[in-house]
Amino acid sequence: MAASIEDVARRAGVSIATVSRALRGLPDVAATTRHRVVEAASELDYVASPFAARLASGRTATVGIVVPFINRWFFAEVLAGAETALRQAGFDLLLYNLGDEPGRARFFDVLPLRKRVDAVVVASLVLDADELDALSALGYPVGLLGIAQDGFLSTRIDDIAGARAAVEHLLALGHRRIGVLSGDTDDPMKFTPPLHRLYGYRDAMRAAGIDPDPALESLGYFTIEGGAEGCERMLALSDRPTAIFAESDEMAYGALRTLRRHGLRVPEDVALIGFDDHPTAEVMDLSTIRQPVAEQAVDVATRLLTTLASPARDIAGDVVLPTELVVRGSTDPSRSVY
Amino acid sequence: MAASIEDVARRAGVSIATVSRALRGLPDVAATTRHRVVEAASELDYVASPFAARLASGRTATVGIVVPFINRWFFAEVLAGAETALRQAGFDLLLYNLGDEPGRARFFDVLPLRKRVDAVVVASLVLDADELDALSALGYPVGLLGIAQDGFLSTRIDDIAGARAAVEHLLALGHRRIGVLSGDTDDPMKFTPPLHRLYGYRDAMRAAGIDPDPALESLGYFTIEGGAEGCERMLALSDRPTAIFAESDEMAYGALRTLRRHGLRVPEDVALIGFDDHPTAEVMDLSTIRQPVAEQAVDVATRLLTTLASPARDIAGDVVLPTELVVRGSTDPSRSVY
Repeated sequence: MAASIEDVARRAGVSIATVSRALRGLPDVAATTRHRVVEAASELDYVASPFAARLASGRTATVGIVVPFINRWFFAEVLAGAETALRQAGFDLLLYNLGDEPGRARFFDVLPLRKRVDAVVVASLVLDADELDALSALGYPVGLLGIAQDGFLSTRIDDIAGARAAVEHLLALGHRRIGVLSGDTDDPMKFTPPLHRLYGYRDAMRAAGIDPDPALESLGYFTIEGGAEGCERMLALSDRPTAIFAESDEMAYGALRTLRRHGLRVPEDVALIGFDDHPTAEVMDLSTIRQPVAEQAVDVATRLLTTLASPARDIAGDVVLPTELVVRGSTDPSRSVY
Repeated sequence: MAASIEDVARRAGVSIATVSRALRGLPDVAATTRHRVVEAASELDYVASPFAARLASGRTATVGIVVPFINRWFFAEVLAGAETALRQAGFDLLLYNLGDEPGRARFFDVLPLRKRVDAVVVASLVLDADELDALSALGYPVGLLGIAQDGFLSTRIDDIAGARAAVEHLLALGHRRIGVLSGDTDDPMKFTPPLHRLYGYRDAMRAAGIDPDPALESLGYFTIEGGAEGCERMLALSDRPTAIFAESDEMAYGALRTLRRHGLRVPEDVALIGFDDHPTAEVMDLSTIRQPVAEQAVDVATRLLTTLASPARDIAGDVVLPTELVVRGSTDPSRSVY
């Protein structure tokens, strides 16, 4: 007959609760105790059943992560960072991709993570009141990545400040007619960066005494193709921009293709700056605003795990990690990497 | 008191097993029946507990996916494809990233997905005999992505044929001195493409009557930086190549940077072809071998779900999806997108 958790507890000389905590890798078990438990479990050939453990402890040793997209660089980095932090603490990661508006509605309606996780990370979504209520009603600790919200812990960058820094760099180089490639701020997925980076652009323009011209705000939908088409529309203007701020590096890549196809030199004819510091930005010689992505995920996941370990301790609050202007050849030829 | 699964079954006029299957989105429940069950559950405000469901049915409605890396384009696409297919069928996705050699050893030792999933997808790993035994011993259907193995169902591309097509394209353009940027075939992570794409390169060279020159096989580790450095080493040769096949587009991007820094024109001085058709390959004007990534994940996930629905039906077997040569300006200036 298979060994039970009681057998392991007896052999290791600890309580059943301690065996359970130790084998699920939860914090606040001393290393020597954990070692003794693992030895005992191994000698008895004991296999922990997460289901049994959950029934006993109310814990699943699993964290749910909710993302609007998976196959965009940003979200892959978020998953990688969160997975590493969770795995090291002995937690599994259940992945929920909303995909589209019906997918999002279905997710918040059904809440498939109900009873399956101990905590939830939600990445880069502006949540409406009903969605926030649904998450709160789950009764799990919830961490937000990329956006702050009263009553939830969060880790993010300041998208407004980052965008402002990009536009201020273009202004400092003497540009006044500056276009922006943005996302759709009415997007039903309500993904945060499009909104905040557009505010940053407008703030910087106004601070320089320039009234933002709606003709210079072009939708690029955060994709390469969208950036290419948005840039095409700006070039068709009679009074076209001398510089473009793309709210993501991927949109900047599309703009770069359009500019090259029109035979325009970058930065001599049109200067270009992106946002993210995507892994290919250096190869593209693209100036950009670097943001720490995996670090945001590690920070929010680690703080969630701390909450789980010591629910009494209040670690809610908003952590803002810094962004950094990276100047390359697409705005300043003297800084070209080539 | 909360409604029970029995209440839902009674109201919908179906068996408890059918309620369970319908609410977990498992196949072989008629659409009208599923609809009736969902209505009844909704009217009774019944919340399915995956744990209760598992205890009743032995099913978790969860598929585990095991990847060597998360934050590389290929694996993000795999996750996105698999997640979509699983979600539509009502399954959750538990994500396991091996990360490194100790992580891999720990994973196969502990098998954290034990008792937590109904099936497993393993992406792009050459599994050794012990690892295959461990997976088989779980007793779940296992699907392999990117590699075929007796006794497992698999979906992949033919990496050898794809690499051969890339090198044959360079040979057809008149190149004879062709370098290759490869991965480390001794990599303890035993990731398949490095091995097979190198075989394809050597096959094509030999078929053209050229003995592969070890000096022209340079390690690029499937990263941008690695590709840049591997290309640097080839350029230092007294008899440098006139063309380079990079086993991934990301390595090709690194090579492109090195070539530009040396003031070499692409393709006039050195022609360059990659592998993958990464989203930025068109912007880079990079010739490449296109592979269908999300499609491989959808195919293997869908066949696994079919196995779960009808365990008797034998759908093991190996599906090979086609790759395609995409010619752009980095090998043929007349095909440049600019």
